[in-house]
Amino acid sequence: MKVLGLGAVAFALGVEWLDWLKRRLRVSRGPLKEVLFFPSPHVCVEHLFTRHGRFPCACPLPHGVETSFSRLLEHLLSACRSLDLCVFSFSHMELSRAILLLHKQGVIVRVVTDRDYMTITGSQIGTLRKAGICVRHEMSSAVHMHHKFALVDGKKLITGSLNWTLTAVQSNKENVMVTEEPELVQPYQQEFQKLWEANDPANHKPQTTNGGLNR
Amino acid sequence: MKVLGLGAVAFALGVEWLDWLKRRLRVSRGPLKEVLFFPSPHVCVEHLFTRHGRFPCACPLPHGVETSFSRLLEHLLSACRSLDLCVFSFSHMELSRAILLLHKQGVIVRVVTDRDYMTITGSQIGTLRKAGICVRHEMSSAVHMHHKFALVDGKKLITGSLNWTLTAVQSNKENVMVTEEPELVQPYQQEFQKLWEANDPANHKPQTTNGGLNR
Repeated sequence: MKVLGLGAVAFALGVEWLDWLKRRLRVSRGPLKEVLFFPSPHVCVEHLFTRHGRFPCACPLPHGVETSFSRLLEHLLSACRSLDLCVFSFSHMELSRAILLLHKQGVIVRVVTDRDYMTITGSQIGTLRKAGICVRHEMSSAVHMHHKFALVDGKKLITGSLNWTLTAVQSNKENVMVTEEPELVQPYQQEFQKLWEANDPANHKPQTTNGGLNR
Repeated sequence: MKVLGLGAVAFALGVEWLDWLKRRLRVSRGPLKEVLFFPSPHVCVEHLFTRHGRFPCACPLPHGVETSFSRLLEHLLSACRSLDLCVFSFSHMELSRAILLLHKQGVIVRVVTDRDYMTITGSQIGTLRKAGICVRHEMSSAVHMHHKFALVDGKKLITGSLNWTLTAVQSNKENVMVTEEPELVQPYQQEFQKLWEANDPANHKPQTTNGGLNR
């Protein structure tokens, strides 16, 4: 009976451990597929920026809580080689901090954004440019670059309805999908490359002082 | 030699036919995954509404051309039982016509939309309501219902950056993903149900004349 009891406990612990391991390693049927919904509660994400920090953060926000926003940050900060970002509106300070950190770490960051929204109050596009990050914007003023997707190391796609703003993250009803499914990643990678090349300033003549046709 | 030649021709034809069949049936690794990019050229989509029409459409638009928009319409019109739609801004006339047609055909249509954007000029939300389609809106005026996704028969997800407006379809840089991957469809179905229940007018007291706290 004792052996049977111990066996049952060991079995239960084993099942629990396998389940934990599965969650940690995100083993699923096929490539990564994760869906995040917003609004996301405002929690401390300092540990994601300072992984090897010696002291725990002392800010008054809740700590050690996983949220949709912390998952989004984790996915972005997992970039080792490249981050291609196509985003309509970008004013979120912590997302800006993440991009600046990746750039500092040597990750090749490329950003395509909207012509009108890149200059609105609070936009982080100027900060990225000042830091030396390559940013291109939609050249036509008659068209909005309305995408909100990112490609991490060319193999992880982050896409959805979420603009990179505080309102979107903390107030709105929004969705973000994260996937490594090649059939989904590849078309977005091609779209990014197409937009990157189409909006190369070298291929566009500087505008005349009278503003040109599109104004 | 003659037999060998005929064999080679038969083999080549067979390969070609299999390739055609694969494209037609959209056989891929696993469930449907399709990505559509916008802007989409303006072409005639009349044939999608009147599949068994006796006469071809005589409008001046290009005919018989498959575009991102025609694919989006085809996916929506493939609904047999239900269409759950969560959309921020909805003013596109042909998309409205598609929803009205599905409703007329007995498909159960449910719409969740944004409180502010449902009343802007050109919004189709009033038209849907007048036709008897169930529409609920985000109850809080401090929050935007910014999703842009649809669920066809509870098994096909259509999601992306695209609002249902003419500018989004014909001018903007936008993306839409269509998938039947259960791991992706299920969370969106749960989100829809959550929003549907949270915005049930029966659970919300009518506002007082002084406007209440949220105004």
